[in-house]
Amino acid sequence: MPAFAAPTRDQLFVLHSLLRIEGTGLPGFDDLDRDFTSAILDEAGRLASDLLAPLNAVGDREGCTLKNGTVTTPTGFRAAFDEMRAGGWTAIDCAPEHGGQGLPHVIHTAVQEPFVSANMAFNMYQGLTHGAYSAIRAHGSDDQKALYLPRLASCEWTGTMNLTEPHCGTDLGLMRTRAEPQPDGSWRITGQKIFISAGDHDLADNIIHLVLARAPGGGEGTKGLSLFIVPKVLVNPDGSLGARNAVAAGKVEHKMGIHGNATCVMDYDGATGFLLGGLHKGMNAMFTMMNEARLGVGLQGYAVAEAAWQAALAHARDRLQGRAVGGARNPDGPADPLIVHPDIRRMLMDQKSFVEGARALTYWGALLLDRTARTDDPQAEALISLLTPVIKGFLTDKGFEMTVAAQQILGGHGYIEDNGLSQLVRDARIAMIYEGANGIQALDLVGRKLAQDGGQAFMGFIALVRGLIASAREGARLDAGLLDPLGRGLDDLQAAAMTFMENAASNPDAALAGSSDFLHMMGEVALGYIWVRAALAAIEAEEAGGIDAALREAKVACARHWLTRHVPATALHLARIRNGAASVLALDPDRF
Amino acid sequence: MPAFAAPTRDQLFVLHSLLRIEGTGLPGFDDLDRDFTSAILDEAGRLASDLLAPLNAVGDREGCTLKNGTVTTPTGFRAAFDEMRAGGWTAIDCAPEHGGQGLPHVIHTAVQEPFVSANMAFNMYQGLTHGAYSAIRAHGSDDQKALYLPRLASCEWTGTMNLTEPHCGTDLGLMRTRAEPQPDGSWRITGQKIFISAGDHDLADNIIHLVLARAPGGGEGTKGLSLFIVPKVLVNPDGSLGARNAVAAGKVEHKMGIHGNATCVMDYDGATGFLLGGLHKGMNAMFTMMNEARLGVGLQGYAVAEAAWQAALAHARDRLQGRAVGGARNPDGPADPLIVHPDIRRMLMDQKSFVEGARALTYWGALLLDRTARTDDPQAEALISLLTPVIKGFLTDKGFEMTVAAQQILGGHGYIEDNGLSQLVRDARIAMIYEGANGIQALDLVGRKLAQDGGQAFMGFIALVRGLIASAREGARLDAGLLDPLGRGLDDLQAAAMTFMENAASNPDAALAGSSDFLHMMGEVALGYIWVRAALAAIEAEEAGGIDAALREAKVACARHWLTRHVPATALHLARIRNGAASVLALDPDRF
Repeated sequence: MPAFAAPTRDQLFVLHSLLRIEGTGLPGFDDLDRDFTSAILDEAGRLASDLLAPLNAVGDREGCTLKNGTVTTPTGFRAAFDEMRAGGWTAIDCAPEHGGQGLPHVIHTAVQEPFVSANMAFNMYQGLTHGAYSAIRAHGSDDQKALYLPRLASCEWTGTMNLTEPHCGTDLGLMRTRAEPQPDGSWRITGQKIFISAGDHDLADNIIHLVLARAPGGGEGTKGLSLFIVPKVLVNPDGSLGARNAVAAGKVEHKMGIHGNATCVMDYDGATGFLLGGLHKGMNAMFTMMNEARLGVGLQGYAVAEAAWQAALAHARDRLQGRAVGGARNPDGPADPLIVHPDIRRMLMDQKSFVEGARALTYWGALLLDRTARTDDPQAEALISLLTPVIKGFLTDKGFEMTVAAQQILGGHGYIEDNGLSQLVRDARIAMIYEGANGIQALDLVGRKLAQDGGQAFMGFIALVRGLIASAREGARLDAGLLDPLGRGLDDLQAAAMTFMENAASNPDAALAGSSDFLHMMGEVALGYIWVRAALAAIEAEEAGGIDAALREAKVACARHWLTRHVPATALHLARIRNGAASVLALDPDRF
Repeated sequence: MPAFAAPTRDQLFVLHSLLRIEGTGLPGFDDLDRDFTSAILDEAGRLASDLLAPLNAVGDREGCTLKNGTVTTPTGFRAAFDEMRAGGWTAIDCAPEHGGQGLPHVIHTAVQEPFVSANMAFNMYQGLTHGAYSAIRAHGSDDQKALYLPRLASCEWTGTMNLTEPHCGTDLGLMRTRAEPQPDGSWRITGQKIFISAGDHDLADNIIHLVLARAPGGGEGTKGLSLFIVPKVLVNPDGSLGARNAVAAGKVEHKMGIHGNATCVMDYDGATGFLLGGLHKGMNAMFTMMNEARLGVGLQGYAVAEAAWQAALAHARDRLQGRAVGGARNPDGPADPLIVHPDIRRMLMDQKSFVEGARALTYWGALLLDRTARTDDPQAEALISLLTPVIKGFLTDKGFEMTVAAQQILGGHGYIEDNGLSQLVRDARIAMIYEGANGIQALDLVGRKLAQDGGQAFMGFIALVRGLIASAREGARLDAGLLDPLGRGLDDLQAAAMTFMENAASNPDAALAGSSDFLHMMGEVALGYIWVRAALAAIEAEEAGGIDAALREAKVACARHWLTRHVPATALHLARIRNGAASVLALDPDRF
């Protein structure tokens, strides 16, 4: 595995040339100039390369082990976690009153990216903790905030999220874990949770489990669920640690990938818990974290593909095999490098244009979250709510596909574990499944987000893309060959939504059968949209002296590649959607 | 992992209702009636379920270990190999004079399929041996045939194929392993080979390595290569085993999947070898085995997907999660089974229509090989030569995709190793890489097969599909909604070929940049073609009382699903091909 190098130059391009974060006028954004972000990202990149990347294969090889009730993480994880903690990397966007740096979520997102590329499994310990921080910050009492938030921000303690049970994953209404009220105002939590990432480990002195459970009186289904704080070690009022709580890891799962993260079965045996947020309002509390968490998983989708693409590019440059069809390009060597072969180059361009486009889309999404959090902007809120399932579902599906393509460039060498590509493929696979499987993202998009508020968010997105195309044509900086596919993609997307609407009452199955196609269409168009913005931004940045001609040229080339080779997939998806559910549901379940 | 059950009913449908093998008039086919094949396939299915499937996870978990120069296979492999050997399952299509049953290749192919589905890694020991058998049968001297073929047919000894070296995979012209002539007519072989499947193991008393090496006088590149027989243990003239030869496994690779098969680094240290076929004709000898070997890898692509699909279907029926949109289908239970949800059903239909179509295409390919071998039919030979890279490349790409989709249906449970889906995904991945990576298949198709003999084979294929559409329209058994997509797909395919021809001289890079798109187009059309034949065959078979209405209905439904949802992908591929190489090659290699 070649050394991982953080794509700092491209990160800065997205933040400053494309999104122009320092000029947004958002509260707290004024000081975010290029020198500032550059200093942070350089240091984050150095940590990713020097500290985290070397531990990636170690984590994969060793995994996590449960012995005598204690989970041990792979060699080196504890020291690395200490270093990340000491450097304040876990609290970039946490509030200053909790010891955080109070920076925007978009900066947190950019900082996270190289950590995920370098070592996705390791970074999850921090990622889950950040989720618990956000949940308690949004829903906790003042006492809970004071007790937990500083320790979660610093990762002195880590966090987990407990939803899934053996018989219920997507359908949380089937949940059985129960909470019984105690005279002292606490609750007794009893049940089994599975697939709990970072469920137990030796990286921190305490683990704050957020547990969804059924408290009396809330009724059936998801309405009856409440969220509870269940510390691994009970905490005294002064914050010091007390007795062990009645919660323990019963098993560490043996998974396809992310071996470095302890995915646990968690047994709650009358554990002491504390209600977080309102009684029977557990689902609300979950939903408030969802946009952020799903954006983070979308980031995993392309960040792992970035690591894979770097390895594939290095191999394609080094490996001498065959001759270019138009004559030797390396006449003094025994053969030409793989990169001269058009089919190899196609795969490299696919990967580069995907990863850079996905980065831009994700940072834009993070900026929309900042806009939502820092100003009263219902349009931004509606837009990111609409885009969240797309970012999660499309970037993880495509990210996996691109990681597999990177592995393919290495041929047999990509299949050997020593070379690291197999791990990246195995790790990338989970992002399509957890935090709502991608079929659930498609259902969320088509069944909920598309029609929300009379379809305003969707119409807003269409208008946004349509407006960009119009202004780009007006500006005449980009040719029709590049812009036309986006217009056609947008037409296809609108036509698909129209088809759904026409069938909504008479044939709801048709929309559901086409939901994944719709999510992919929208992903293609969203990436096409951001690529047109990126190409325009590159042209303007070069004129302003911010970037060189080579970067501008590369950006326009990648934009053209994505728009001409990938966005046209919308036509296929539309054709399928117009077919409706007929062929999909033609066979009765018992006739398969 | 639910029990694997061989798809015997569908295998018989393909052999008898679709291909009508007993009526082909080919030598040796007259006795192949349904009773006969049914008896063989029932027994093969039983072995696959009872003997091989239970060893699949064992092989994945234990892998193969090299200790003191000896490779040990997983627990139970030796006993199972003995049982397969004893039952004559390794010699189905070997010649009776070598102890084989002399059955057609299409029967061998059908028998192999459940073995591969049940345990791909295990079956490779036999598969490689079969390749060595075929090579020696085609190119060996009478003495070589007499010595090796009966022992390879019975798998008393096994075989390997040694091409790849550390610095050369696809580009065999770079090969360094050398052969020096000895006074006694033998050769001394010296060099290192890598990625040698079944390179060493404890399943047989001897291993016959076929080694491509450079003998003096043949010149540079592939022209100088010859093929040698290098036994692990030298063989006395009477067939008894003599001294160990100077060849040894230096390492067993740690791979992403197929752990049960020992992929070895093989060190030849002046090993004694015997020329197989003509001096400096090694490439010829390789090419004669290639169609058969690549068909076998295409079979792996869908056979593993079959095992995955069975697991996904069982899970989708058992797992209760959520309610159908149109009202509860399992009102007495806490939720409806997953299979009622249209997005799940879509994935199941994709998998079913792919696997059954791929089976039909592969058996048809095997039948074309039989026709080529048993009669003088240059058209059949040209057609299977054209289809071979499509069967290998398309069925392994799609097979992997479908296996991943099956894993997705299990959600988080699919990511846990205990449930078997991860292994199937990891195993399926190799089929896209070995026996010529799929990019090489695309190059073979576009750079060689398409233009061969003035494009006759391709035009023959077009005429065949066109003729089927015409006769199906005439027969009016299938509606236009099902047939039209095939016509459009065929038009797209022809248009793509035309685009290549127009650019052939001026821009050869354009064809190469579009080669993988072309392979996929042709795969879509080939599967569409065989699905139309299958649908027609099902209608006729029902009328003749050979199958029931349910099977006919399922066949027509799957045909419609493939034709309306998958074949239309040709339009996207054509659009990309028409774009040419511009965006693919826009960036210089040093600008990435």
